Amino acid sequence: MPPFHPAEKSANTAPKDAPNPHIAAMNNAPIGIFDSGMGGLTVMAALAARLPDEQFVYLGDTARLPYGTKSAETVRRYALQAAHALTERGVKLVVIACNTASVSLPFLKQALAPLPVIGVIEPGAEAALRVAPEGPIAVIATEGTVKGGAYVNAIHERSAAPVVQQPCPLFVPMAEEGLTDGPIAEAVAERYLGPLMAQLPKPKVLVLGCTHYPALKAVIARIAGPDVRLVDSAAITADAVAQLLADGGLAAGAKQGPHKFLATDAPDRFARVGEIFFGTPIDAGAVEQIDLR
Amino acid sequence: MPPFHPAEKSANTAPKDAPNPHIAAMNNAPIGIFDSGMGGLTVMAALAARLPDEQFVYLGDTARLPYGTKSAETVRRYALQAAHALTERGVKLVVIACNTASVSLPFLKQALAPLPVIGVIEPGAEAALRVAPEGPIAVIATEGTVKGGAYVNAIHERSAAPVVQQPCPLFVPMAEEGLTDGPIAEAVAERYLGPLMAQLPKPKVLVLGCTHYPALKAVIARIAGPDVRLVDSAAITADAVAQLLADGGLAAGAKQGPHKFLATDAPDRFARVGEIFFGTPIDAGAVEQIDLR
Repeated sequence: MPPFHPAEKSANTAPKDAPNPHIAAMNNAPIGIFDSGMGGLTVMAALAARLPDEQFVYLGDTARLPYGTKSAETVRRYALQAAHALTERGVKLVVIACNTASVSLPFLKQALAPLPVIGVIEPGAEAALRVAPEGPIAVIATEGTVKGGAYVNAIHERSAAPVVQQPCPLFVPMAEEGLTDGPIAEAVAERYLGPLMAQLPKPKVLVLGCTHYPALKAVIARIAGPDVRLVDSAAITADAVAQLLADGGLAAGAKQGPHKFLATDAPDRFARVGEIFFGTPIDAGAVEQIDLR
Repeated sequence: MPPFHPAEKSANTAPKDAPNPHIAAMNNAPIGIFDSGMGGLTVMAALAARLPDEQFVYLGDTARLPYGTKSAETVRRYALQAAHALTERGVKLVVIACNTASVSLPFLKQALAPLPVIGVIEPGAEAALRVAPEGPIAVIATEGTVKGGAYVNAIHERSAAPVVQQPCPLFVPMAEEGLTDGPIAEAVAERYLGPLMAQLPKPKVLVLGCTHYPALKAVIARIAGPDVRLVDSAAITADAVAQLLADGGLAAGAKQGPHKFLATDAPDRFARVGEIFFGTPIDAGAVEQIDLR
């Protein structure tokens, strides 16, 4: 059995002693990351900081964002198209840096096998359970993620800890507008988090279940209160990817070439808004526009 | 020359004395309306109230909303696909009930000729100039509409009145969440409209340049102040369509069948959120899901 057959094994259980020779040859290949838009750049920033030798190819499906309000079937179709655009560019691993699209994880694992695929939901669920094994766990996410119940399912596969969810539809456009602090951000965060934090017993941990939300981390932490630990999927996913590379002998042998950015629409807006999430300026001229079908 | 060749003539100048026999036979055909999502239902509601005998087919391209952040080229491609889905259903007239997609008006007029096509920009620009022929005219819209400059162009083709624009990215998700009044709506409206209304001389008229914005009309009017007239594209477009039907002898001869709703994704969400804009409940079972390519 190939050690990275992802349809049968999760990343964490891949054996350390039998790297797949096909994949081992790909050490210096880039890591592919995709998101519906720019939010996944928080994940890429965490990955690039954690794995400075690796090259990343980031794809933002900006022509069809947001995924958060779309049906699971449509999101699955879009996710497969995005993943194929990355595999065509020779990536060694695909990171679904989008909570909504992570509902497609089992499907993508099967479609791309033996290429490893990693989402943000499972690392987030595991991190939440490490902080509060008995719960209660609160999850904030897009409408699509909440409705799909991906975090609830991932947590309940591992534990009986109670989970409460809250969709926060305004957080994504607020983050994209740079409206990440001040009275409006406070009022909107209070509107979403107030009722969630008033639950009894009060949640011990709050999962930021959307890659845009780390941009609002300061105000979210303030409203949640000092007794609530935040789980940021960007940082957690970077740890999971580092582990997967180490386990599979897939890490780059030396510093690789510059990162690549792909967008399905409006590369200039991608570069401008992307900077909010990436934390470093992105050269609009370096963003390649591609078509997904 | 066929009287409704829309690439050469605007609706208002179509001659009253020579109805196209091909089109005249279509009196009882439905009127097609499309939008990127549910916002255009404000236009349909105004049309249905103004033209109670007509049947409407509404298409919301919910799989790819919003159009407001997408490039003009992508929006034009999507608009053509949506218009074709309507013409396949035998409509006698196409209403682009989306400000962003209205940038495609000249292109769609040419592609669909001799079928009449009407957008929301030109009626809105004309209404603003009737209120304040010398300006200043303020326009609030999505980022795409502001960047495309469609209102500025439409106004400046007719007048030298000064125009100021302001994108309001949070208004669409706020309206969809039903967050149309109260302190958050006030604070966000103040953020967008405050600087716009502080311009000297103060704008005399404010164009609601997005079909979602009528849902926030009360708070917008309050922040703008009693000396500023609001132009609501839904009502204005309904007048323009009624005029076009009358001029072309295209009005329905008697009360036609029930309206139809088409959506490219999530018919249940379409029905639920659509009610905010349509003002009347929409039966989710009656919303047909279609694919656009």
